[in-house]
Amino acid sequence: MMLINGHALDKVDALDRGLHYGDGLFETLAVRAGQPLLWRRHRQRLAEGCARLGLPPPDDSLLDKEAAQVCAGVTQGVLKIVLTRGVGGRGYRAPAAVHPTRIVARYPWPDYSSESATRGIVMRVCATRMAQNPALAGMKHLNRLEQVLARNEWDDPGITEGIMLDNEGWVISGTMSNLFLVKAGALLTPDVTQCGVAGVMRGLILDIAARLDITARIGEITLNDVLEADEVFVCNSLIGLWPVRQLAERHYVRGPLRTRLAAEVTGYTV
Amino acid sequence: MMLINGHALDKVDALDRGLHYGDGLFETLAVRAGQPLLWRRHRQRLAEGCARLGLPPPDDSLLDKEAAQVCAGVTQGVLKIVLTRGVGGRGYRAPAAVHPTRIVARYPWPDYSSESATRGIVMRVCATRMAQNPALAGMKHLNRLEQVLARNEWDDPGITEGIMLDNEGWVISGTMSNLFLVKAGALLTPDVTQCGVAGVMRGLILDIAARLDITARIGEITLNDVLEADEVFVCNSLIGLWPVRQLAERHYVRGPLRTRLAAEVTGYTV
Repeated sequence: MMLINGHALDKVDALDRGLHYGDGLFETLAVRAGQPLLWRRHRQRLAEGCARLGLPPPDDSLLDKEAAQVCAGVTQGVLKIVLTRGVGGRGYRAPAAVHPTRIVARYPWPDYSSESATRGIVMRVCATRMAQNPALAGMKHLNRLEQVLARNEWDDPGITEGIMLDNEGWVISGTMSNLFLVKAGALLTPDVTQCGVAGVMRGLILDIAARLDITARIGEITLNDVLEADEVFVCNSLIGLWPVRQLAERHYVRGPLRTRLAAEVTGYTV
Repeated sequence: MMLINGHALDKVDALDRGLHYGDGLFETLAVRAGQPLLWRRHRQRLAEGCARLGLPPPDDSLLDKEAAQVCAGVTQGVLKIVLTRGVGGRGYRAPAAVHPTRIVARYPWPDYSSESATRGIVMRVCATRMAQNPALAGMKHLNRLEQVLARNEWDDPGITEGIMLDNEGWVISGTMSNLFLVKAGALLTPDVTQCGVAGVMRGLILDIAARLDITARIGEITLNDVLEADEVFVCNSLIGLWPVRQLAERHYVRGPLRTRLAAEVTGYTV
């Protein structure tokens, strides 16, 4: 099911700036028992992205209503919201009057292997780099060719996710997830002010860590830091927290901190 | 008029990967007397982009036919071709069977001021930077948020174009054009292997310079180099070559080389 500007449609104008320039934002949420999870946090990030791109933000009550409509009766699924600068003339300049395109769509729950959350995943290191651009960093915008190229580097079903580095070689994230290391009981996650996405689940984990007095540091991380970590896990709003059991030749033992945090996040639904 | 996969339509599937990720390419061509100009060069760049993105390239004779159909009877106009990886599931991974979306669309000729080509344009320096990423550099792909943000930095109708620098401060291009300097009779244009677009008109100018034994260098250019140049001009497939008469406080005198090259390019139509 899909609503486009409130109407049950499945097509958008071929002149939409989302298509021509990636001029817009998106959010992807887990849906359980008819409710989009971490809705408040996702809505907040969408609003922040709108402010940064100069996009008129959607009306909150309208978005609430449309999300509820699309999620009604869904036991487990995915909600995706796409917001673009709407139809514009040819050329990069935004039209004087912007009429955003708002897509609120439901997708089936992905066929994730149940082993990913329990036994953990195998990761690789991607060759495709993320470019540093503070003007775009952190946002969940529609310019995602780097992730597309990185994800299409491998075909091996035994490898679930790939680590992406920036052009200076710093570790930033997975192709579709944020990354955390555990070292001597402390959490460490890459800075995303130069590139990468400030994931909602990443934000929740950092908030939980603060509440539980778990030391958490945001900073520059090398591939060597990842290889030498005690635990490594990836996260996003759909997968929650997946332990990494192998990266290249390094095998990790699952540790207690990921398990504790995974249990904690299930208590947060708004 | 617009053809989508050969059909006269004006909407695309809301699940198109062009919209969700900017997963695709485009070309913008001038049309005169029913003919898309520099067609062979644009088609060549599109094919190169397809190879780099792993997109199935469109059949040449099909694209010829559709372009001719859309351009028929057009005295002066714009042809835009958009090619995406088509409809895909949620997630960055390309579907196993890719069915590209091919948009061939006609637009009216932009209302460019006739003064731009004769008297020259005023430029500014944009604050939005281009991120270096060799995996994407040179391609006319659909991830254009940097250009959108840069073009929306100013509203003054007296300023026609903005210079964009990369994150290291090197001059790369305009927001919608490539940039050339003239210094002591030689041409100089920024390298676009780290970021920016390898414009078709830029390529033609470099080819013409080689044929006419005009020294042309592709390299690293600073803002100071631009300010100290004898002549500066910008180019793309629609505008041809526009002299720059002012950048910040620097006023330029129009020189002979831009005029000579502008006359030369009109002889190239395929």
